Amino acid sequence: MSNNNALAARVRGTVHVIGAGLLGASVGLGLRERGVDVTLEDQSPTTVALAADYGAGRLRTAQDPEPALVVVATPPDVTADVIERALTTYPNAVVTDVASVKLAPYLELLRRGLDLKNYVGSHPMAGRERGGAIMARADLFVARPWVICRDHETPAEALALVEDVALDLGATPLEMTPEEHDRSVGLVSHLPQVVSSLLAARLIPASEQAVGLAGAGLRDTTRIASSDPELWVQILGANRAPVVELLDAFGKDLASFADALRDPEQTGAKRRIADLLSSGNRGVARIPGKHGSSERFTSIMVLIDDTPGQLGRLLTELGELGINMEDLRLEHSPGAQIGFAEIAVLPEVAERAVTDLVERGWRTL
Amino acid sequence: MSNNNALAARVRGTVHVIGAGLLGASVGLGLRERGVDVTLEDQSPTTVALAADYGAGRLRTAQDPEPALVVVATPPDVTADVIERALTTYPNAVVTDVASVKLAPYLELLRRGLDLKNYVGSHPMAGRERGGAIMARADLFVARPWVICRDHETPAEALALVEDVALDLGATPLEMTPEEHDRSVGLVSHLPQVVSSLLAARLIPASEQAVGLAGAGLRDTTRIASSDPELWVQILGANRAPVVELLDAFGKDLASFADALRDPEQTGAKRRIADLLSSGNRGVARIPGKHGSSERFTSIMVLIDDTPGQLGRLLTELGELGINMEDLRLEHSPGAQIGFAEIAVLPEVAERAVTDLVERGWRTL
Repeated sequence: MSNNNALAARVRGTVHVIGAGLLGASVGLGLRERGVDVTLEDQSPTTVALAADYGAGRLRTAQDPEPALVVVATPPDVTADVIERALTTYPNAVVTDVASVKLAPYLELLRRGLDLKNYVGSHPMAGRERGGAIMARADLFVARPWVICRDHETPAEALALVEDVALDLGATPLEMTPEEHDRSVGLVSHLPQVVSSLLAARLIPASEQAVGLAGAGLRDTTRIASSDPELWVQILGANRAPVVELLDAFGKDLASFADALRDPEQTGAKRRIADLLSSGNRGVARIPGKHGSSERFTSIMVLIDDTPGQLGRLLTELGELGINMEDLRLEHSPGAQIGFAEIAVLPEVAERAVTDLVERGWRTL
Repeated sequence: MSNNNALAARVRGTVHVIGAGLLGASVGLGLRERGVDVTLEDQSPTTVALAADYGAGRLRTAQDPEPALVVVATPPDVTADVIERALTTYPNAVVTDVASVKLAPYLELLRRGLDLKNYVGSHPMAGRERGGAIMARADLFVARPWVICRDHETPAEALALVEDVALDLGATPLEMTPEEHDRSVGLVSHLPQVVSSLLAARLIPASEQAVGLAGAGLRDTTRIASSDPELWVQILGANRAPVVELLDAFGKDLASFADALRDPEQTGAKRRIADLLSSGNRGVARIPGKHGSSERFTSIMVLIDDTPGQLGRLLTELGELGINMEDLRLEHSPGAQIGFAEIAVLPEVAERAVTDLVERGWRTL
């Protein structure tokens, strides 16, 4: 509670959220929970009414004073326009946005000759970017990185205000320049999206028999290929330069790999194939796990059948045994009434976990 | 039991397994469970002794009669040699192998002028290809596709014997030509492996900050990049032509995408980007789900904290509510003590599942 009041005190006024979709409404819900006064605005009267009904804030009236903070949470292609309008309409408010690309809107605002001392771009890395207010949650940002962009002219108070909001919504604020941000998300989000989509697109002309052989590897690599194309056209278009550079570099690696495989007798070809594959090992080891480090866990495969509750029983028993699961993945095959739960645990408890599970009648690998 | 005796009767003799690693020892364990006499052989005396200790079969002696079936389960680069030796040593036995590439060893055997009427190549699509006898399971092949290759000269009895073994180990036999098999696994397994490895390799030079922004998308797309490079050098080398063709086609798509993004004002560029992304949607929809069809499930996100047993309680309650989970994925962020369980259920039960869970105090998205 002291925390809540502290934020409300710091904000000293109203937070105005423009764009009442998933992100905007979630910001509203989270801030309302912490006692902040939130007003809402959206192009669509239905959307804003729905978000207000959900408790994400109230509609702004002509009597309302200027907000202390404006959060722009509109689709990427109108972000710069909406930021400009906010800076003009509320000249004393700090304005931030939550768009997933940061350099293009910033350069556009500079190009328009706006005074950007009150603008602090930001980007909460919050799961899915689709879904409307109906999907909003006060805890959407909990434990997510929230990138905050600054330049040398950004006043410390403006920066601190946006960081406080990120912290109070449960996120982990990270400072980056817009360039660093865009290159980073290009690598960890936009490149994987394009690669996954193109990989999945290759399945269209395949025979039914061929796709019938698909296993967990294909399912994992193509999962994000089901993302919303319309949104991704906007994101990729707004982050063109870094993504093109990454695609070109990836394409070069791919061509080099294909050439080595095409002509394995050329000098160093086999070595090149092996090197690229083991670079993959080292690259994947850099991805932070659940606890923010690159530590790896030990996997235990447990056989489960397809009846309701069996997996629940397994996990309840793990709980009873005091074994914390770091990750869990289900693996099953077409037509199977049986599958495997792959449970990741800390290496030091793996052996005991297996012994205890087998003792209770589970079949493990 | 009648089933077991039926297989033992059909096999009419011993099954000899050459190569007592994960696949070979699992074949042995599965057949032994069904009453079949299994003998084992491996280059490594330690490996074969271990597999025998695990109950995968017994060591072959000079007194043993010729086996009815030989299963070659050696690493891919020696498969052709071992098949040749088996065909020569046991001229009346049916010989099969479980290597993950089918055309290259077949052509090599033809080139050597061997009579292949007793050879039936096969490939069980059984999860992981690494791990030794210590990882073996009698149920490794349960509900997995098992590709069986034939040519017009393969005698019906030889084919039937291998199919019976696949069926009795719980797998789903599928007939394909070696060419069809290699093109299919090239698409659904080898191409994703290369793409995932190259994507992960791009993370090596990235900043700590950049990889810190990694989310579920990157984790999914790069998961198989941790596969064993040595094994994959062999597999890709043995399936060179189809994989090179697939890499070239993928590279063309990638270049086309990069060009459209590089110069979005050229005619049709935006359309091309959108088309490739929505092709990804359609491609991923072709991958069979758990029940062997392309039907999609509805996802429910449930908030869970990081204490042992909480996920177990959730799944137990799903069981009590009679809600069968079609898939489950955990999502968590660096440093988080909280995460989400993404539960896939049939669309028709989704609404009730959410209502019931919320009633029991769970927070859902």
